[in-house]
Amino acid sequence: MSLHGTYDAQNIFAQIIRGEAPCYKLYEDEDVLAFLDVFPQSYGHCLVVPKRAAARNILEIDADNLAKLMAVVQRLTRVLVDELEPAGVQVAQFNGAPAGQTVFHLHMHIVPRYAGETLGVHASVKADPAALAQLQARLLQRMAS
Amino acid sequence: MSLHGTYDAQNIFAQIIRGEAPCYKLYEDEDVLAFLDVFPQSYGHCLVVPKRAAARNILEIDADNLAKLMAVVQRLTRVLVDELEPAGVQVAQFNGAPAGQTVFHLHMHIVPRYAGETLGVHASVKADPAALAQLQARLLQRMAS
Repeated sequence: MSLHGTYDAQNIFAQIIRGEAPCYKLYEDEDVLAFLDVFPQSYGHCLVVPKRAAARNILEIDADNLAKLMAVVQRLTRVLVDELEPAGVQVAQFNGAPAGQTVFHLHMHIVPRYAGETLGVHASVKADPAALAQLQARLLQRMAS
Repeated sequence: MSLHGTYDAQNIFAQIIRGEAPCYKLYEDEDVLAFLDVFPQSYGHCLVVPKRAAARNILEIDADNLAKLMAVVQRLTRVLVDELEPAGVQVAQFNGAPAGQTVFHLHMHIVPRYAGETLGVHASVKADPAALAQLQARLLQRMAS
């Protein structure tokens, strides 16, 4: 059953955390990493992951790491709202493949919503690398200001 | 703009928190309240709200109340998984009407997903009161065990 199982240390987010795979990094501290989703459902779609917890889903993380994760989700949501001025923002977290989870390292989605725009299907279209790099620069600049 | 505005103390969740409106309560402490969604998108759809924060959305809550909220989300997700054995669980939080928010008091959705079942449209069909009461009893019993 997909909600229970063994953590696979070779999942892509674990590779990103270890620096073995690249990402468009937005924020990092000892406990939490945030980066752009390369298959965005909307402009500014970000992911936030715990670094120290080998947790497949919300069932498996400790309360302290969950709190730290959510504090970064909140901070980054504020940055996205300030910089991209979306009409709304969806925060979502999927547990198990039938719930839409595709990478089995706990992650929070932050998905800006714009008036009149429907969401893209996740994991279907890879974003243009130049556009991702430009968006990354824009958000990093906002965070630094 | 829907992400910014004044907290309306007459919203339905504020009324529920004050005990002025009923709910199918699952959990309550000084800081957090959890209850069944009466317009469920799936069997076992729950809502978790902060009691002390007059927060419309994730932008407006303090980190401590957010952490307490998420600890209850996690606890209740575990209860739902144990008792209802869904194939997956979606945790979601909507900010602003264009993102799907319909009540402007911050709330986390916990939506069990079952194999082969698509989600109902939120806020469209009110669940049968007897079925909600039966589900509430079932989850309360599981939490007590």
